[in-house]
Amino acid sequence: MTIQIIGYIQSGYTLKVISTLLELGIPYEIIIPDKFADIKTPEYLATKHPFGKIPVLIDDGFQLYESHAIARYLVNKYQGTKNSTVLIPSDIQKAALVEQFISVGRSYHNVPVAKLITQEISANFLGGTLDPEIIKEAREETSKVLDVYEKLLEGKDYLTGEFSLADLLHCPYYCVTTGYDDLWNDPKRPNVARWWKNMSERESWKKIIYELENIPGDIVY
Amino acid sequence: MTIQIIGYIQSGYTLKVISTLLELGIPYEIIIPDKFADIKTPEYLATKHPFGKIPVLIDDGFQLYESHAIARYLVNKYQGTKNSTVLIPSDIQKAALVEQFISVGRSYHNVPVAKLITQEISANFLGGTLDPEIIKEAREETSKVLDVYEKLLEGKDYLTGEFSLADLLHCPYYCVTTGYDDLWNDPKRPNVARWWKNMSERESWKKIIYELENIPGDIVY
Ligand SMILES: N[C@@H](CCC(=O)N[C@@H](CS)C(=O)NCC(=O)O)C(=O)O
Ligand SMILES: N[C@@H](CCC(=O)N[C@@H](CS)C(=O)NCC(=O)O)C(=O)O
Repeated sequence: MTIQIIGYIQSGYTLKVISTLLELGIPYEIIIPDKFADIKTPEYLATKHPFGKIPVLIDDGFQLYESHAIARYLVNKYQGTKNSTVLIPSDIQKAALVEQFISVGRSYHNVPVAKLITQEISANFLGGTLDPEIIKEAREETSKVLDVYEKLLEGKDYLTGEFSLADLLHCPYYCVTTGYDDLWNDPKRPNVARWWKNMSERESWKKIIYELENIPGDIVY
Repeated sequence: MTIQIIGYIQSGYTLKVISTLLELGIPYEIIIPDKFADIKTPEYLATKHPFGKIPVLIDDGFQLYESHAIARYLVNKYQGTKNSTVLIPSDIQKAALVEQFISVGRSYHNVPVAKLITQEISANFLGGTLDPEIIKEAREETSKVLDVYEKLLEGKDYLTGEFSLADLLHCPYYCVTTGYDDLWNDPKRPNVARWWKNMSERESWKKIIYELENIPGDIVY
């Protein structure tokens, strides 16, 4: 049975799972909730995600929620079955470095980036307006974090050296479609710019950006 | 060579690593920075943790930062070598559920708990004062999250059924020593109270609480 993902393509957390599936070459189908309120119903909370979130994975009767857990599960189960892409290496120290950079992404990189994305989602899908102060602050914070990444990426194509789940879970696709990618494409940070270029040339990246730019309908809130 | 952990016993993130070492039965030594400012020096940032944090692991020349990455590394490398405690099962679906609940802990449980702990640390070690409003709010938020846990823990001794790294990384030791444990010990939430009791009877838990209550000196800020 085809793997099913309950989620929205507009959701960064859903995209973490989609990009993992694309990289591993695993076919999938997205089940889009009819309306946003559907993920807050007692039934959804009781049977899909107890905190009312997306994404949720359904793999032949096995259900799992939380994007990072789903991504690791997909790697453990399917890595090497469809193609030779390695997202988590079997070597214990190399795998540890992948986990280190996954945590760095979640702890430091994604905090200011989430502020930018939340502003954009609020303005584009929820009828809110952009707050220039918050955007300015979030851009400055992102810039500071990327200054550290500039050092981490010295002499490297990807965070651990080789492409891995750590790069993938940084997942800043929204920053492309919203035009904040100047922060990553800054000549002041050549290592970050090289990392960004390497990621943006991947097929999974191109497919996701294409889909983000061609979303058929709006979410019904 | 004995495993070394750079960190403070007062640090919840350090305790995640210490509890993992204790559960796996691995000897370790804590290297306590002389003063807090030491983890912000250019040398520390360049050679230990690029964002100036603790804990950092040193295992026979191999260095790793970020508590969750360190915990997973210790499990991958040492689980089964000193005792029979299983923190991450080898079965792919069972391991996925451990990861799901690690992420649930980090995403929902630890957010309000961190607010409580930050208040306490600020008041106890940084010369700040407790803000009763923030504490009230954080307690209410924690309570709501624990209402969901009450359902998740129905009929179970631990989050996935069996004890795992997911329970361990919830790591709310501070809530014991600061007296917030009434939230987990609430007769309104018998499943959560049973989970709490199961955890607090573990040797690793008792040892950590003992050490927290008998910290020899203060951190120099
Ligand atoms: N920790 C979760 C976060 C998932 C999440 O926050 N998803 C958002 C969409 S991007 C959501 O469901 N939001 C609904 C809400 O928070 O009400 C994960 O990693 O999967
Ligand atoms: N994401 C890190 C967080 C570590 C962390 O924030 N540690 C605190 C002590 S509990 C720290 O080093 N704080 C120093 C600071 O933020 O300046 C991890 O999981 O290890």
